[in-house]
Amino acid sequence: MGEFDLIQRFFKSQSQSHVSADAVPVGIGDDCAVINPTPGMQWLVSSDMLVEGRHFLSTVAPQRLGHKALAVNLSDLAACGAKPRAFTLALSLQRADEVFLAGFAQGLFELAQRHGIALVGGDTTQGPLNICITVMGEVPRGQALLRSGAQVGDDLYVSGATLGDARLALEVFRGTVPLAGEAFEQVRRAMECPQPRVELGQALRGVARSAIDVSDGLLGDLGHILKASGVGACVDVDALPRSPVLAMQDLSLQRECGLAGGDDYELVFSAPSDAAGRAAVAAAAAASGTPVQRIGCIEAEPGLRLRDGAGCLLPNLFSSFDHFK
Amino acid sequence: MGEFDLIQRFFKSQSQSHVSADAVPVGIGDDCAVINPTPGMQWLVSSDMLVEGRHFLSTVAPQRLGHKALAVNLSDLAACGAKPRAFTLALSLQRADEVFLAGFAQGLFELAQRHGIALVGGDTTQGPLNICITVMGEVPRGQALLRSGAQVGDDLYVSGATLGDARLALEVFRGTVPLAGEAFEQVRRAMECPQPRVELGQALRGVARSAIDVSDGLLGDLGHILKASGVGACVDVDALPRSPVLAMQDLSLQRECGLAGGDDYELVFSAPSDAAGRAAVAAAAAASGTPVQRIGCIEAEPGLRLRDGAGCLLPNLFSSFDHFK
Repeated sequence: MGEFDLIQRFFKSQSQSHVSADAVPVGIGDDCAVINPTPGMQWLVSSDMLVEGRHFLSTVAPQRLGHKALAVNLSDLAACGAKPRAFTLALSLQRADEVFLAGFAQGLFELAQRHGIALVGGDTTQGPLNICITVMGEVPRGQALLRSGAQVGDDLYVSGATLGDARLALEVFRGTVPLAGEAFEQVRRAMECPQPRVELGQALRGVARSAIDVSDGLLGDLGHILKASGVGACVDVDALPRSPVLAMQDLSLQRECGLAGGDDYELVFSAPSDAAGRAAVAAAAAASGTPVQRIGCIEAEPGLRLRDGAGCLLPNLFSSFDHFK
Repeated sequence: MGEFDLIQRFFKSQSQSHVSADAVPVGIGDDCAVINPTPGMQWLVSSDMLVEGRHFLSTVAPQRLGHKALAVNLSDLAACGAKPRAFTLALSLQRADEVFLAGFAQGLFELAQRHGIALVGGDTTQGPLNICITVMGEVPRGQALLRSGAQVGDDLYVSGATLGDARLALEVFRGTVPLAGEAFEQVRRAMECPQPRVELGQALRGVARSAIDVSDGLLGDLGHILKASGVGACVDVDALPRSPVLAMQDLSLQRECGLAGGDDYELVFSAPSDAAGRAAVAAAAAASGTPVQRIGCIEAEPGLRLRDGAGCLLPNLFSSFDHFK
């Protein structure tokens, strides 16, 4: 199977069957794709690169890897409140393994179709396994959710009900936590099949004042909001949502997974704390079918403070993931 | 040096100093970049991934690698006649080597600034050296140059005066051709510092009927035009432009480098063969300061025929590069 056959067979055939021809008049197969941006909208772009051993383990099923590679990118669009439009896929493979490619494409396109995003181009090459996806989406002018909009007094929220499960799964793979059966399958699914909060992100336009997705750990990613907004925050550690499986672990492990876990792809966001603000967040959560949890507030004092449910200040022992530290 | 310091120091500082803030209201540093598309224009997108040993040798200077990584992507925009707008860079590195990064960024941004394209985001991760760039550009609606527009009777052209030099340099590195001194430097520059034909591509809008850039070899890339357009072609092998260095090699090597070389990043295009068509091509070449050479014509008979200057049919011994064959 050659490069062009591979693209045709596994990628081109499904690339844009789920979007209108006028949206993407030229897709895979020319030097560039041609896309019609929606008039009056701004164009949002993000790229993520996934490397074996760093972003996924060699044990992951190809279908889940295809899902996750797109999911982590859709999560960036979600964090900005964007509607997904198109993506490119660049893939470096040691060899053209048909079983791998068929599974990878299946996971990728199931998620792409669910969110109405077209594959419009990319590249395939021979080399160490590497997956680079660039996603593009749209928001009405001036309505992108940014890291820089948090205001003192805002409530802080996180989406989802399983924050920290992905990290717990990683600890099982590392051998530091024993977990088996359905409990392991649940946390493994959180790690390998994250669900990007695309609907919630769009529902939060005009509701949230700042947002980011949790890829490197809640505290580290929240830190980006605080820095960009020039504010501080207090987080109620005991308010973090956690799955029944995580809730059965030691309290210190629960906190480490929830606060510094990473790979969650939930949204952390701030919104006005008045009654109208809280009602708007609740409505966005309901409209998108996504649970959200209030976990703290934005404060004027710089830095990040952790409190437990009793209001006692806790030391912050956690650092965010950094690829070169 | 951590991941965020690295991005700030080598990439963010120079990322969009050369474009207006209204063009890219949010650049590097949020979950997505926010770009304002120009009203009435279509959006063009292309991604290329470069892997060490496949797309570049470990001996390449970092500055040239930065140049080439963006150049091969700009070449795809050029082939469609697009005006460059923005790009993302995803970079996998074994380690955060400051000398490498400083050189890479210098080569990258010199070319970016020359073509007015902003770096709007990306990713850095630890892993085997891999460079993935996604470029975005614009054309007025319906004016993108495509592979599918060639018509029987069109003239065939190729840009530039050094077709095949990149392949000649590769043969020197492979040890099959002896070449030293300034001659070697010239062909090495062609391989390591290709100049994307961005101005020519835009000048050919409304002039050329089809276009592609030469990345895998003239005949292979021309083959994509023929397939997409449902036509054939005849190429006059002796009409191919060649540098003085290539012209001193054996005739068979000259032909192999020119016809099947790859890595040239010249444009191959077709245009009407009447006097007005030829005058328009000449005007586009002059306006963009880019030499173009007529090398054959589009024919109804499928397939690709090679003739020498005396009109004798030659066997086509050349195949295009394929990463998985």
